[in-house]
Amino acid sequence: MSLDTADAERHTLKMQKRKAVQDAEVASKTIEKGLIMVHTGAGKGKSTAAFGLILRALGHGWKIGVVQFIKGAWDTGEQRALAVAFPDHVTWRAMGEGFTWETQDKARDMAAAAAAWAEAQALMADPAYRLIVLDEINIALRYDYLDLAAVLAALAAKRPDLTVVLTGRNAKPELIDVADLVTEMTLVKHPFKAGVKAQAGIEF
Amino acid sequence: MSLDTADAERHTLKMQKRKAVQDAEVASKTIEKGLIMVHTGAGKGKSTAAFGLILRALGHGWKIGVVQFIKGAWDTGEQRALAVAFPDHVTWRAMGEGFTWETQDKARDMAAAAAAWAEAQALMADPAYRLIVLDEINIALRYDYLDLAAVLAALAAKRPDLTVVLTGRNAKPELIDVADLVTEMTLVKHPFKAGVKAQAGIEF
Repeated sequence: MSLDTADAERHTLKMQKRKAVQDAEVASKTIEKGLIMVHTGAGKGKSTAAFGLILRALGHGWKIGVVQFIKGAWDTGEQRALAVAFPDHVTWRAMGEGFTWETQDKARDMAAAAAAWAEAQALMADPAYRLIVLDEINIALRYDYLDLAAVLAALAAKRPDLTVVLTGRNAKPELIDVADLVTEMTLVKHPFKAGVKAQAGIEF
Repeated sequence: MSLDTADAERHTLKMQKRKAVQDAEVASKTIEKGLIMVHTGAGKGKSTAAFGLILRALGHGWKIGVVQFIKGAWDTGEQRALAVAFPDHVTWRAMGEGFTWETQDKARDMAAAAAAWAEAQALMADPAYRLIVLDEINIALRYDYLDLAAVLAALAAKRPDLTVVLTGRNAKPELIDVADLVTEMTLVKHPFKAGVKAQAGIEF
């Protein structure tokens, strides 16, 4: 693609103006604190983005806790990679027992959610951790397997420098209210619909 | 929360039915192949979910290539963590020169995009790689710094077992058409709006 001189000059002027706006914008943001982040929606990428955040935090030497509310002790790529590469920096608690249609036992699902929440509270109370991922906790909240008020109270009482990421579809409005950052992963197109199966390296 | 016997039995019956539906659904998905994945939208998590996917793929021993179209040789947590832990499995090419309002030079931006695309083509042609992340390529496509037809042709010609993830807001409709999986990260709430600055471990 070619570029004439007038076009190049117009571009430079436009970008100089834009830089002034951007710089003022950046300068106006001065608060530093741990965040409450929510990844919700029906699309793919809610847990995966939390795992990407773990990778980023590891590069800064943070210690990280993960509590999985639905997934049990499955062999996933992300868990294996972290166990091999960062055994001292990541505490991974897969406390779930699988999907509700696998356990077919509500009392057991509720007990698993309570145990996972106890683990989450212990990790959040430990000042060694800077990032806690509560994976699929929104599912447990949605089915009332967990008490929303207890979760909100724990988030309100967290150390200011602790970041907590809560994932899962159908996030409760009260959780969205208290969150600093909320992303909805929206499903535009999914390969399952075209007959593609869940595959190692992509889905788990 | 308490649970009476009738409730527990209703739950079990409902979940048995749901499991039958789920099992039939899973059995109907038989295709295995590398995917074309697009992460777009104005929300956070597009690149981060791609990095989470890298972590997952590393757990399965895959070799991975990353080409960044906008970010240059900045010191990010994700890149540092991967360089330390998986130097032989991840090839990371930060080919950008920064945001358009930083370079203020369209010819330079276009040259950087062309160089990044050459690198992307080389990695896609190398059968050692199972996953290629083209980070922020949608930005380069949107500004016509890259030829969309060339990118679509390369995707159409890719090895069937290669997964390519293309990130960045404003994905072109033609790219969405050829993708297997498209997630739109929708901005619900962002801490920048509340005066929180970009922070290490969270934003980079």
